[in-house]
Amino acid sequence: MTTNRQIQLAELPRDKLGPEHFKLGEAAMPSAKDGELLLRVRYISLDAANRAWMQGATYRSALEAGQVMAGGAIGEVIESKAPGFAKGDLVFGDTGWQEYAALPAKRVQKLEKREPMTHLLSVYGVAGLTAYFGLLNVGQPKSGETVVVSAAAGSVGSLVGQIAKVKGCRVVGIAGGAKKCAWLKSELGFDEAIDYKAVAVGAALKDAAPKGIDVYFDNVGGDILEACLFRMNTFGRISCCGAVSQYDGQAPRHGPRGIPGLIVTKRLTMRGFIVTDFDAERGKALADLESWVKAGKLKVPEDVMTGLENTPRALIGLLAGDNIGKRMVKVV
Amino acid sequence: MTTNRQIQLAELPRDKLGPEHFKLGEAAMPSAKDGELLLRVRYISLDAANRAWMQGATYRSALEAGQVMAGGAIGEVIESKAPGFAKGDLVFGDTGWQEYAALPAKRVQKLEKREPMTHLLSVYGVAGLTAYFGLLNVGQPKSGETVVVSAAAGSVGSLVGQIAKVKGCRVVGIAGGAKKCAWLKSELGFDEAIDYKAVAVGAALKDAAPKGIDVYFDNVGGDILEACLFRMNTFGRISCCGAVSQYDGQAPRHGPRGIPGLIVTKRLTMRGFIVTDFDAERGKALADLESWVKAGKLKVPEDVMTGLENTPRALIGLLAGDNIGKRMVKVV
Repeated sequence: MTTNRQIQLAELPRDKLGPEHFKLGEAAMPSAKDGELLLRVRYISLDAANRAWMQGATYRSALEAGQVMAGGAIGEVIESKAPGFAKGDLVFGDTGWQEYAALPAKRVQKLEKREPMTHLLSVYGVAGLTAYFGLLNVGQPKSGETVVVSAAAGSVGSLVGQIAKVKGCRVVGIAGGAKKCAWLKSELGFDEAIDYKAVAVGAALKDAAPKGIDVYFDNVGGDILEACLFRMNTFGRISCCGAVSQYDGQAPRHGPRGIPGLIVTKRLTMRGFIVTDFDAERGKALADLESWVKAGKLKVPEDVMTGLENTPRALIGLLAGDNIGKRMVKVV
Repeated sequence: MTTNRQIQLAELPRDKLGPEHFKLGEAAMPSAKDGELLLRVRYISLDAANRAWMQGATYRSALEAGQVMAGGAIGEVIESKAPGFAKGDLVFGDTGWQEYAALPAKRVQKLEKREPMTHLLSVYGVAGLTAYFGLLNVGQPKSGETVVVSAAAGSVGSLVGQIAKVKGCRVVGIAGGAKKCAWLKSELGFDEAIDYKAVAVGAALKDAAPKGIDVYFDNVGGDILEACLFRMNTFGRISCCGAVSQYDGQAPRHGPRGIPGLIVTKRLTMRGFIVTDFDAERGKALADLESWVKAGKLKVPEDVMTGLENTPRALIGLLAGDNIGKRMVKVV
């Protein structure tokens, strides 16, 4: 039997995440107990939330040094000791960054097979559903309204903007770098894109969103959230999805100016969510997403790296904004 | 004919508001044009928002030096040049701080007479309706949940806590000083009260709200909002009514820590409102409030000062937390 290569969290970062916080190790092959599945890890999902888990307890408990690094992945069942699962099935679960994992069946989600398999981590996975529910259920955009999304070239943001276009909105993306901004407009059909590394976001929003912002889909928090707050229209909605500007360092020191003052005077709603809050509507969401993909209304940008040993680099690069679209690592 | 005494805004405060920012002046008696009402000002309402209006444009344009100080009041019609209004009618409107005002009829609200007249500014006025809509429509508390309210001994907070008790909630008030805190528990029936001047609010909330906070009614913003954010339960609601901690000084520098991080991980909703957003439900609200007052479930604390010349002092004191319940100035 082969051994199980894994990436362990060597040390919790106190500031910026680097390669020194990980180490490649080997462990004995896990085995499935009653009610469990033995999984071969196929594609590991990289998410900014991986870094947030190192800061403390969130919707899951905080990570600890010495553990296998946590993370979601597509796993293929190679042995099932749980009813309803058979060899060859694909599942999504928190396998961690390793080649094999044994997980209780109740902690994974069975996946309908689709081609390419990578779409199960992007448009038909957490990224796509997060974009769908966060924009439509939380943000509630109406046709003709202006939607602004940050981290717009990322896995979620790139889909948010395209879904907003499907719904007839004016869409402004905020991203880092001229290349990403040009791509948002030429490839994804965004109306405007703002390069936050090159210009002052607040001033740029006056031109890009001349009628103000009705829905702001916030992936980043911090200064960009603050700039958007000052441009929100009365009764605007802020969909709080993430705060990636705050993850790769110490705990956030303070929040944006204008809170709660602007929330009162503009009667804004800020609402946080995570994707599983909307599990009951998952079927309809997947059907909508699939129909838009098939109609060519949604392009699915993916950024696939290869090799378990590259997973730390994939996350570190994601936090620096290297990726365009959904980043993942192909393990086998 | 008599002259019209008025309090003018001599100068916009750059920091803390003081008597030097006002001056007592006299003007000619105003007269009503077509469509207008000539009003004798009876009771002037003092509100923290009066100070916020000096900081810049909010839901109304910013105040300017040299103007009569703006403010809502009960006016008695002494001459009507508008259909539907007659001598002797009572109205609520932004008369400003003066003895007489001529206002377009469409900018005032006719009041049903009630005894005592002061209740038209407290429980049956902006304070009561703000408490009612902000708690019930925005906060949506359920029986058995924990509701926390800041500025709890103020005009709005004192009613919020009592309405939450009517709805079967555990109620924690945050107020400044042992006297107010004792009064909240003994007179108004709050379950717990926290003296923010004497103890650390975050630590005190662990004891006072051991099951966490489901609804936080925020009148103050700043550090107390931050302390409550860290104690909110998953899917908790923050009703954003005001930010009095931020009004009496320069513009706010930054917001609470944990925004947007905690909003995401706890899936909180923060929503701002002003009372007129719910005008369509005003009738039902007034009927509910009146039934609770008559049943002895709502006590109506009022703090009435006398004499137009004391209005600046009344506002300065309100910003320092001198009042218990609704503060107003009886003009005649």
